[in-house]
Amino acid sequence: MKLDRLVGERFKERPSDCLVDSHAFMVRGGYMKFVTTGIFSSYMPLKRITRKIEQIMREEMDAVDGQEVSFPVVMPASMWEESGRYESIGKELMRFSDRNDSPLVLGMTHEEAAVHLVREFAKGYKSYPFMIYQIQTKFRDEARPRAGLIRVREFTMKDAYSFHTSQEDLEQYYDRCHKAYERIYARAGLPEVVSVASDSGMMGGKISHEFMLLTPIGEDSIVLCDECDYRANMEAAENILVTEKKADAPLEKVHTPGAHTIEELTAFLGCKEADTCKAVVYQRNADDKYIVLFLRGDLEANETKLTNFLGCDIHPAFITEESGLCAGFIGPVGLDADAIVLYDSSLKGANGLACGANEEEHHMTGLDMDRDVPGAEFHDFAKVFVGGICPKCGKPALRIERGIEVGNIFQLGTKYTESMNMTYTDQDGSVKHPIMGCYGIGVGRLAAAICEAHHDDYGPIWPMSVAPWQVHLCGVRAADTAEVREVSDKLYNDLQAAGVEVIYDDRKVNPGVMFSDADLLGVPVRVTVSPRNLKENVIEVTSRDKSFSAKIPVEGALEELLKIVEDFKKR
Amino acid sequence: MKLDRLVGERFKERPSDCLVDSHAFMVRGGYMKFVTTGIFSSYMPLKRITRKIEQIMREEMDAVDGQEVSFPVVMPASMWEESGRYESIGKELMRFSDRNDSPLVLGMTHEEAAVHLVREFAKGYKSYPFMIYQIQTKFRDEARPRAGLIRVREFTMKDAYSFHTSQEDLEQYYDRCHKAYERIYARAGLPEVVSVASDSGMMGGKISHEFMLLTPIGEDSIVLCDECDYRANMEAAENILVTEKKADAPLEKVHTPGAHTIEELTAFLGCKEADTCKAVVYQRNADDKYIVLFLRGDLEANETKLTNFLGCDIHPAFITEESGLCAGFIGPVGLDADAIVLYDSSLKGANGLACGANEEEHHMTGLDMDRDVPGAEFHDFAKVFVGGICPKCGKPALRIERGIEVGNIFQLGTKYTESMNMTYTDQDGSVKHPIMGCYGIGVGRLAAAICEAHHDDYGPIWPMSVAPWQVHLCGVRAADTAEVREVSDKLYNDLQAAGVEVIYDDRKVNPGVMFSDADLLGVPVRVTVSPRNLKENVIEVTSRDKSFSAKIPVEGALEELLKIVEDFKKR
Repeated sequence: MKLDRLVGERFKERPSDCLVDSHAFMVRGGYMKFVTTGIFSSYMPLKRITRKIEQIMREEMDAVDGQEVSFPVVMPASMWEESGRYESIGKELMRFSDRNDSPLVLGMTHEEAAVHLVREFAKGYKSYPFMIYQIQTKFRDEARPRAGLIRVREFTMKDAYSFHTSQEDLEQYYDRCHKAYERIYARAGLPEVVSVASDSGMMGGKISHEFMLLTPIGEDSIVLCDECDYRANMEAAENILVTEKKADAPLEKVHTPGAHTIEELTAFLGCKEADTCKAVVYQRNADDKYIVLFLRGDLEANETKLTNFLGCDIHPAFITEESGLCAGFIGPVGLDADAIVLYDSSLKGANGLACGANEEEHHMTGLDMDRDVPGAEFHDFAKVFVGGICPKCGKPALRIERGIEVGNIFQLGTKYTESMNMTYTDQDGSVKHPIMGCYGIGVGRLAAAICEAHHDDYGPIWPMSVAPWQVHLCGVRAADTAEVREVSDKLYNDLQAAGVEVIYDDRKVNPGVMFSDADLLGVPVRVTVSPRNLKENVIEVTSRDKSFSAKIPVEGALEELLKIVEDFKKR
Repeated sequence: MKLDRLVGERFKERPSDCLVDSHAFMVRGGYMKFVTTGIFSSYMPLKRITRKIEQIMREEMDAVDGQEVSFPVVMPASMWEESGRYESIGKELMRFSDRNDSPLVLGMTHEEAAVHLVREFAKGYKSYPFMIYQIQTKFRDEARPRAGLIRVREFTMKDAYSFHTSQEDLEQYYDRCHKAYERIYARAGLPEVVSVASDSGMMGGKISHEFMLLTPIGEDSIVLCDECDYRANMEAAENILVTEKKADAPLEKVHTPGAHTIEELTAFLGCKEADTCKAVVYQRNADDKYIVLFLRGDLEANETKLTNFLGCDIHPAFITEESGLCAGFIGPVGLDADAIVLYDSSLKGANGLACGANEEEHHMTGLDMDRDVPGAEFHDFAKVFVGGICPKCGKPALRIERGIEVGNIFQLGTKYTESMNMTYTDQDGSVKHPIMGCYGIGVGRLAAAICEAHHDDYGPIWPMSVAPWQVHLCGVRAADTAEVREVSDKLYNDLQAAGVEVIYDDRKVNPGVMFSDADLLGVPVRVTVSPRNLKENVIEVTSRDKSFSAKIPVEGALEELLKIVEDFKKR
């Protein structure tokens, strides 16, 4: 490919709406173009990258006996009604109707379609296990698309579905897929991706893992232990607490003028945040019913844990005068409101706490949960914190990092096979529902994550395995220097004939423009043919990551370059 | 791949809802599964076929300097409003709104997206010509999906868009693409596909061609000349007529009791259909305004020509009592109705015609168009007929055949670049709109067309270039014959190691089931290892199309088979 024919613009200024580097480079380098919120078109360089990523995924899925199939983008609502998700999923599921008013949805994931495809096929236990996968466009009507390809509405995903006759078989296969995922990231140039235990959310099932690239721009919080290999998504990380009993104190109402927040209250009373019991109020999306969560004042509520416990979607509350809730002064004693009241484990057995008195400008002190709130049930609703106790090794060694989720795998159980009535006859003649696993990676997000992990100030540094081209050939002054023209044209043709993917810049532009464009395209091996080098009868070979630089004789350059490209493939 | 692991059912009975062979075989052979009207999932065999077809398309598009990009499936309505197609296209364009009530559409074609992607890029004439293409899912809310993959709602299409600075350049490139399309069909095993001049319909532009597989199950009518190479879609074929003057006759009203149709009228009057002037009535979709077309009684109206002339969509009329139209007796003289009245060229200069008298049970005779309908304008609104005059060579040698459209190419002109304001500065400094061409092939429909053209009573006969596998290995009684097991397992492994795609049937089923399953999968080369053959120390090689059959020694079988596979690739 000659660079002067490449469709797409490259430019220097970082667009102000690009908050992360991968987004900025992909816009500046002519990789992608904004169409509407969370929806992009791709130019050739990005298309070449994503096709290579897809091929790596395909090979690794085939290697774990996957069968490539395809499911529709547009599906009948009835299929999603069978699983119950037509009702349970919120606005992310794009719903619409066709010319005959038949309700349809855009696939955001394909568990239903997978069960639909195979449910008449696998009637006997001998057909199991099997795995089907596709690489297909999906749509999720995200409320807040962000960061270029990191969180979009339309995306291409490799999604796989496995079917099993026992939990043991699923677990074995789940491990194989886990390893296949590790190979995918390693081959795509991201061996640093780690897997963390995660929350299964709307997918159903219990055990699931997310694959995370740790990076400050990530939108997920990852909990890691400094003392062991515990890793979990904040949403799923269990909060372990040790509650120390204080001296007994009576429950007393205190006038606390101006103390509306925990900070103001602790300043007023001269106590620590951990010595208070605070209230966080939500409402159910469906009917706006209030949910009051009490937890220790130094902790934060984990909405995912709350949602999972309640089995429904919630949002931060808008507290009305009629609610019976006295905002800023809500406490567990004497609360008189039509609300679901929940208690976090951090309050279990706690005493000597300050809390709201359910009355303007008043708090209580000396709250003893066992004594004053008898019958309260305690569950884990709080976020883990730095220095918290590791649920695996028990040491207070938790730290929190940010990460981009670049893949996830789920043990789904029988949620879909039961609801959609997929059955098989087992060896003993009994009729059972198969157990499912599912396994997804977003293609575009992985491309963006590679760029986040591998770039410098001037552009992406693509690994050879996914680079849009393998060699970037710069013919400096080729337009008006016959010798450069001759040597670089010949190299272009010879390299291509040898099967190397070459982007060739023979434009009449100054070397600075050539090199900054090359930086933006991020091709791993750069070959420069220039009048100055040719005087020494050499050409220059450098790597995009600056780890390699050499001058090689024009004579025999092709063979030498082929060796270098092969070396880079093995890196 | 082992056949016993292959997901999907194969069965014998032809499903009653499968009207064409490709549909029946693809359902019976475990290629596809119905999801909802016009929407299917694909199993592995079909997915492998379509991926091979896509790769052929990709290579041929790259060979004509195409750049693979990707456009979104979901696009903002505003983009289609720019081109005017948001209004002009009917219900086939799937319209819906997202969570913020922003109107969106599902892409059924991507001219708008193509212009959007490049309009800031190609500001100077030197950037031209260029071509971008994608292979992507599309959705068209067809009123009448039919025939399996032949006419669906969701489909994968290769669509390409070229941009030019002159009509000559477009025409040159259009020819290159025409040839690339011929290569695609030839490589996919359909060299018999022909191109025909076609109507450009909603795409805009003047010159366009459709690529047609001639087959009785096709839904298009193709006009061909027996005397020259004229070929056109019925929708676009010009109707050439010679009108013979008859003796003068006065215009007279005749009582024609019971003569409501042309047949009844000609029987009553004892004249030929060609001696009548009939009326065909439509209504505009937008406002139901009536359109009355008069044409010679032996001809049929061509709705496409009418639609193109009117510039709006129409439907057959529902004639009310208030319309002023006297159904069955409508004639051009004394017609008193609020309607657009059109005259087909077949009536130009005609005389001695019978026609309706705009009065129940009455007709006129002796109609002379020049005398009785002065000022009428005549246009070509009629369908060509068998034996009609060829517009190219002028001989009365037209014949009509059925065909499946398997691709189309359009010279679009500046319809999209003007409406979406894409401009470039020409060599002379003037600002112009680039001229576009577009080029599309549906992947699934091509797969179905290959199956229609190449099958027998037992299943598809896939060409090697698109076959789901290259070799179908049958290990007859492998399950309980050690020698068969040994030889066929070894062949399976050796062939795969040599890069051959093998589907291996080692199931414990009788040979009849094995062979009928193999027929349904349609793999070109079949290798049978059986106890009987092994007694002679040979294996049997046959081709799916029955053109080839041989017994080859077990010793050296691999090398011999590799040669056979190579031979089939060259066919």
